[in-house]
Amino acid sequence: MPLDDLQALLRAGLPDDALVTDPDVAASYAHDMAGFCAAGTPAAVVLPRTVEQVQHVMRTATALRVPVVPQGARTGLSGAANATDGCIVVSLTRMDRILDISPVDRVAVVEPGVVNAVLSRAVAEHGLFYPPDPSSWETCTIGGNIGTASGGLCCVKYGVTAEYVIGLDVVLADGRLLRTGRRTAKGVAGYDLTRLFVGSEGSLGIVVRAVLALKPAPPVQLALAAEFPSTAAACAAVCAIMERGHAPSLLELMDRTTLRAVNAMARMGLPETTEALLLAAFDTPDPAADLAALGAVCTEFGATEVVPADDPAESELLLKARRLSLTALEAVKSATMIDDVCVPRSKLAAMIDGTAAIAEKHDLTIGVCAHAGDGNTHPVVCFDAADADESRRARESFDEIMALGLELGGTITGEHGVGVLKKEWLARELGPVGLEMQRGVKAAFDPLGILNPGKLF
Amino acid sequence: MPLDDLQALLRAGLPDDALVTDPDVAASYAHDMAGFCAAGTPAAVVLPRTVEQVQHVMRTATALRVPVVPQGARTGLSGAANATDGCIVVSLTRMDRILDISPVDRVAVVEPGVVNAVLSRAVAEHGLFYPPDPSSWETCTIGGNIGTASGGLCCVKYGVTAEYVIGLDVVLADGRLLRTGRRTAKGVAGYDLTRLFVGSEGSLGIVVRAVLALKPAPPVQLALAAEFPSTAAACAAVCAIMERGHAPSLLELMDRTTLRAVNAMARMGLPETTEALLLAAFDTPDPAADLAALGAVCTEFGATEVVPADDPAESELLLKARRLSLTALEAVKSATMIDDVCVPRSKLAAMIDGTAAIAEKHDLTIGVCAHAGDGNTHPVVCFDAADADESRRARESFDEIMALGLELGGTITGEHGVGVLKKEWLARELGPVGLEMQRGVKAAFDPLGILNPGKLF
Repeated sequence: MPLDDLQALLRAGLPDDALVTDPDVAASYAHDMAGFCAAGTPAAVVLPRTVEQVQHVMRTATALRVPVVPQGARTGLSGAANATDGCIVVSLTRMDRILDISPVDRVAVVEPGVVNAVLSRAVAEHGLFYPPDPSSWETCTIGGNIGTASGGLCCVKYGVTAEYVIGLDVVLADGRLLRTGRRTAKGVAGYDLTRLFVGSEGSLGIVVRAVLALKPAPPVQLALAAEFPSTAAACAAVCAIMERGHAPSLLELMDRTTLRAVNAMARMGLPETTEALLLAAFDTPDPAADLAALGAVCTEFGATEVVPADDPAESELLLKARRLSLTALEAVKSATMIDDVCVPRSKLAAMIDGTAAIAEKHDLTIGVCAHAGDGNTHPVVCFDAADADESRRARESFDEIMALGLELGGTITGEHGVGVLKKEWLARELGPVGLEMQRGVKAAFDPLGILNPGKLF
Repeated sequence: MPLDDLQALLRAGLPDDALVTDPDVAASYAHDMAGFCAAGTPAAVVLPRTVEQVQHVMRTATALRVPVVPQGARTGLSGAANATDGCIVVSLTRMDRILDISPVDRVAVVEPGVVNAVLSRAVAEHGLFYPPDPSSWETCTIGGNIGTASGGLCCVKYGVTAEYVIGLDVVLADGRLLRTGRRTAKGVAGYDLTRLFVGSEGSLGIVVRAVLALKPAPPVQLALAAEFPSTAAACAAVCAIMERGHAPSLLELMDRTTLRAVNAMARMGLPETTEALLLAAFDTPDPAADLAALGAVCTEFGATEVVPADDPAESELLLKARRLSLTALEAVKSATMIDDVCVPRSKLAAMIDGTAAIAEKHDLTIGVCAHAGDGNTHPVVCFDAADADESRRARESFDEIMALGLELGGTITGEHGVGVLKKEWLARELGPVGLEMQRGVKAAFDPLGILNPGKLF
């Protein structure tokens, strides 16, 4: 159908400022932060403020069989929010109201465009805590977090986004409104459709309202850094920490390549001869005592130095190195591919050492930082995008890292999602029966296949 | 098809002792513990020991279009495991192996027939904790817990079964094997089909293996009892406890009717003039201090007496009254109907007082015990099954209690499930769009409708 007709039909149910048709502006909505994934050109970008406006868009899209790509802040790392040619992009960023915060029920009700950090600060004023904290938390939206089922640093103690989403309002492909889940602490009435939408990358419906479970705010966390002479020793310490029942609120690992990159960028004076740095934190009533016990485990497993912070400011300084990791690795070469392989904790050392072997084989720089307590590694493949051979080797190593993860009983994505980046790998992980059942679910919600087509599978 | 043919086809792929065809023995598998729900007569009962045997049954059932009803220990309270006429009952109780317990990965891998208490004790030997603890935990199976998404006393701190199921092997309606989820701490590869099966009451497939997340074993819990002059005061205390960030491992409420029934049965000397008894426990490093703080909140909200236990034995004595509640209420009249309405915590008082009003209106004895911290009430309607009018009033009050729960923003079932008991109510809670999407999911997994037909919707 001609572009003008589509835009006219959309305009009929939208306020003037909700429809972007200028091709240059629309093009700026073409992709998320996985820049190297293919992205098409949207026919229109809609910035709705109400549920009814989203419903109008979906009714129009269904009538015209036009694909729709829902977007949050486009901080994703898998291309899941990338436009397809001729699609309608629905950016939910203007639906950014916090509708309710209840300390008694320990829930918040929000629109999808609320920024993670805005919500986190708002609930903190009520003595509450919304744990999920992806790296992009200052800019990413709750709707995007739900779409990608995102994680963060806190998962080792608090789990991922999925565990905090208990109810949803979803505009379906045909424009109808579906309400799932509950506001109550428990509820088992029918199939858990709420959870089905979490991580569905906009392929089953558009989330327009979410009921989120909250926790009481814990004490401010206190951190520790421990230097290890090998990743194997650091990973053995991680396993022992978890096996012995410690409950850190953060347990992160940086390898030597990452340490060097951070030093090169920020002159932090990190120990470059150290093969692995472990960062741990506790948000318990007596974090110093808990850190001392965890530090003792590190020493037992060969840590050459254990540095506990004395106060929250010192903690933040220790954690700054971790927070800079990705940016620092991105500065090593002109391009990076960030992997997100999660393995059983007991296989963490095998995963990291195997990644080092892949880097060596392909003569590439691959830095690994990991949510070590979860077994969730982020190997960052650094390469020169202008060098065709290096780019090819980067892609090969990226794939070999996922193959290694599956071999070790892991998954191709712990928290970043599938998008377009890992479509073929999803099929490998799920196998033919799994893939068929996933497609069956997709067809039940989106029989015309207009919701974010070409993503996931 | 003739019964003999069905049995012969089943026998072809099963060892002799796996097939029960004796009508009397088969009839003993007709229903779960919701005895007053309709139950049919099974054509055969299969007791498989292997995945292949379950696959054989499902292939046979698909070929013959015969309904299949999966069963665990049949301790459910909604008729979800009740046989339908001419069905094949698949009892998973013989698939009872614990396949793996990993303290490092904090997971257990089990067959569905493992009894909850057996698993709990086995993981405790490794310093681990499998929290879900339905009342029937000494006899109910993990497969049944997964089918009904069951809860228990620990949910206020540890959540429900769903939160501990991270991967499944499922035999589909056509006999194919589907593997969902993961063994890793995190994973977002595709739609969360694992969670879809939890609470699906055997209507989407037969779970033959489960990967369960475990927690480190906490200290033994210490309990406290607090007597209140009104349920409103007790509920206000519950709200304040949760609002102020206390994290009890148990927070239960018994109303006056329940207290009287327990006294009548066990002569426990519970205070019958008390309108509500609150029981709380902590499994923290310093439970006495935490109980003292919680006790102070109870006093602030009008508790006339606060009795903290000095040791675990005394705790168990306090909790015994709660554990006896259901049995004691069942002894009041010849029959009971156990409701399971969960409301937002802030509406708990309205729910309990509303239930008392319903009891008075219908001139019935309705005792309420509640997982108060979750807002999950169990009103137990006591009636004489031989008295037609009283039975009618019991059914009416049972329904009015659910209507009240929905009015208060709650759900018709917090942990018992829908089964046949609450089918019509599920439709009311979900609404037409919700119901249609649920049916769509069902059709995607079970196009012939042979898996536990007539349950849920």
